Amino acid sequence: MAQHEQSAASFPEHIRKKRNGEQLSAGEIRDFVQGVKDKTIQESQIGAMLMAIWLQGMVAEETLALTKEMMMSGEVMSWPAEWEGLVVDKHSTGGVGDKISLVLAPALAACGCKVPMISGRGLAHTGGTLDKLESIPGFNVYQSVQQLHGILEEVGCCIVGQTDNLVPADKVMYALRDVTSTVDSLPLITGSIISKKGAESLNALVLDVKFGNAALYKDLGSAKSLAQSMVTVGNSLGIRTGAVLSRMNCPIGRCVGNTLEVMESLECLKGRGPDDILELVTSLGGLLLWMVGRAGSLEEGKKVISTTLQNGAALEKFQNMMIGQGVTSQIAASLCSTNTDYYSILRRAHYQTELETQGHGTVLDIDGMVIAQVLHRLGAGRSKAGDPVNHSVGAELLVSLGQKVAKGQPWLRVHYETPALSAEQRLSLQGALTLGPADQLLTQPLVAEIILP
Amino acid sequence: MAQHEQSAASFPEHIRKKRNGEQLSAGEIRDFVQGVKDKTIQESQIGAMLMAIWLQGMVAEETLALTKEMMMSGEVMSWPAEWEGLVVDKHSTGGVGDKISLVLAPALAACGCKVPMISGRGLAHTGGTLDKLESIPGFNVYQSVQQLHGILEEVGCCIVGQTDNLVPADKVMYALRDVTSTVDSLPLITGSIISKKGAESLNALVLDVKFGNAALYKDLGSAKSLAQSMVTVGNSLGIRTGAVLSRMNCPIGRCVGNTLEVMESLECLKGRGPDDILELVTSLGGLLLWMVGRAGSLEEGKKVISTTLQNGAALEKFQNMMIGQGVTSQIAASLCSTNTDYYSILRRAHYQTELETQGHGTVLDIDGMVIAQVLHRLGAGRSKAGDPVNHSVGAELLVSLGQKVAKGQPWLRVHYETPALSAEQRLSLQGALTLGPADQLLTQPLVAEIILP
Repeated sequence: MAQHEQSAASFPEHIRKKRNGEQLSAGEIRDFVQGVKDKTIQESQIGAMLMAIWLQGMVAEETLALTKEMMMSGEVMSWPAEWEGLVVDKHSTGGVGDKISLVLAPALAACGCKVPMISGRGLAHTGGTLDKLESIPGFNVYQSVQQLHGILEEVGCCIVGQTDNLVPADKVMYALRDVTSTVDSLPLITGSIISKKGAESLNALVLDVKFGNAALYKDLGSAKSLAQSMVTVGNSLGIRTGAVLSRMNCPIGRCVGNTLEVMESLECLKGRGPDDILELVTSLGGLLLWMVGRAGSLEEGKKVISTTLQNGAALEKFQNMMIGQGVTSQIAASLCSTNTDYYSILRRAHYQTELETQGHGTVLDIDGMVIAQVLHRLGAGRSKAGDPVNHSVGAELLVSLGQKVAKGQPWLRVHYETPALSAEQRLSLQGALTLGPADQLLTQPLVAEIILP
Repeated sequence: MAQHEQSAASFPEHIRKKRNGEQLSAGEIRDFVQGVKDKTIQESQIGAMLMAIWLQGMVAEETLALTKEMMMSGEVMSWPAEWEGLVVDKHSTGGVGDKISLVLAPALAACGCKVPMISGRGLAHTGGTLDKLESIPGFNVYQSVQQLHGILEEVGCCIVGQTDNLVPADKVMYALRDVTSTVDSLPLITGSIISKKGAESLNALVLDVKFGNAALYKDLGSAKSLAQSMVTVGNSLGIRTGAVLSRMNCPIGRCVGNTLEVMESLECLKGRGPDDILELVTSLGGLLLWMVGRAGSLEEGKKVISTTLQNGAALEKFQNMMIGQGVTSQIAASLCSTNTDYYSILRRAHYQTELETQGHGTVLDIDGMVIAQVLHRLGAGRSKAGDPVNHSVGAELLVSLGQKVAKGQPWLRVHYETPALSAEQRLSLQGALTLGPADQLLTQPLVAEIILP
């Protein structure tokens, strides 16, 4: 107690050090994280420290200390000894139409891994895995630690929300970063993400770090800096950590919006998914399998993952995970049957409207950011934590990159309710589609680079 | 109301702009100051904005807008039309043994000026004018605006504490700057000081900007930057503003500590003050008299001020000011009589001890900072706002710069009570005195530079 009071009293001195660009000691970083957790540091001081970190940065040693202290601020999970080497997870920096977790978790479980996936909700233009899953009637993302153990034991994968005890310091810091414009800081992002993964006591972790128009980082260089920072800290914490740097301009897959993305994920698990989703799922999963020694190479890992999507093994895991997390056997079985009418189970939005192309040519670009922003205003996303979302709002792409289209051809189906799609929003959406001569098509691989542990 | 909510909602965007080194508009600065005052901006956001301002700075236009908005956040005083051109004040950035206000305010009143001096309390190593005056029995620094008018009308000078209505935004900001290590920022200091002087509706203002070991700014260059910033903003607000840049290494005068400094101020008003105090009082006062047109030159102004100290006119003003602020006529008269036993009225500390020189030679330096820090720990100052101070704790210098001393000669008399002066503190104090050969004496003028409006 006396020691804490002392830390709080000397905290202006810690702020001064970081403000002046000096390196904070592990003890000073501990004071910060503990003070944030215990509320012995004033919010104004947290705001000032976050801004000083944003502007002055942190060296690798400081970032590691920050991550460790955040991780230790709450409960750290422990797993049965026989799972050693099998516990894996993935983290994505967030994209438009990013439903990779829904396909990857069961695919990895089908390969014998244990996947305690702790996910988040959508904020701003990016969707959240928990929101997607909650469009399935009965799916419960809140599971106790015991229940989580049970589902992992029985099924092998589980996708849940963060418990109150996991990295409590991050909850405070994250909320304050949002209002103080200090979100996009390399050490703060690293600390926030890796501390939560560290508290999951993983053996291996793969990071999907996105860059491009519809991502937090616009260029490969800055995304790579973040990936490198997280890979370094993850490995220093004893987690085999690798990263996949992937382009994020067009939406991932054909569907954007919670319900629509669940449908598309189920299609992937039935072996009928679009190429880009398969590419990401197999790259991320393949890297994980190689890191835990369940594949001799990345290529072999990719093939193993791919097989689980073709032979129904991943689909079966998803079905059992749904049942484990509260969905009735009947609904789970129906969603996973080969020829489902998804809308007999998932709620469809009251209105659909199709946008038509206003010219002809080759599809050169589809701006995911524009689509996400319009859907956000239609109720698919939330502007602040705690806001409700309308799971049925979304959009389906009816064309794909490089496709030749005629004038007046439907290219986007928008699902909406209240508010209705306005003329201005239609105009915005039309601006998301770029047509042009075929020779101007720039084909770049989805995965730009892979960082190994 | 709706507009305020909007400002608060868009505030992260304002922070982002300053964080990125962009210039804030007058409207954005208004949002900040209003939000601080109305508490519609979270404390974490104020902390982050203060740190962003500290690290990225502000251009002159922003600093002026900040100062104006802070000034307008509360009551702005108004004076009778017949005082036009007479209302003046001084601000000092704070020094060890700085009792200039106690001598200057009555001297200016004796020259026909109106001096509504709004002063502060001591914090950290520097003393506060209000604390000094409160060592006089009955002296009340809390006066209503009506009382202030009355005393100014009758006497011409008044030294009071800040009212709740004066620059309320600064009260919040100042407290947060203290805990977030954002005190020493040029635009924030300028805003804080000049907004309060602006709210006093002054005709002229003189700034005593100190530099050296015992000052906030260690070198002339940085002190000059601050002085220039304040002079520019002051003049832009329509106040004739000038600055005196003065050295702050040795204590000012011979006494440090609240009661002792009151005694020394009275000696000055009786025409028996040490040269350095006279130099500062006449320079600051002379500059003010010249700025309001009551002296044809700075030199003439200095002489006029000096005369009021020699002929008892300033002393009479001080006596009447004390009576106006609650001191009995008897006590006021007794303190101002030629041969007073001050200790018959002012409380003397229980213990005095004299330190002796440990060698012989010429006094080359007396480190004011070291003396102030030891006295602070003995109870003369406060570590946080609201702490009590012991007015009787202090020290008297028994030697002066350039004086030849023998070994074992008393050079410092320390006044203390509880806690007692420790052996370690004695050692620190001994380190404050530097003796050496006479030819190493570096004599530099106290006033290094004067900045005219």
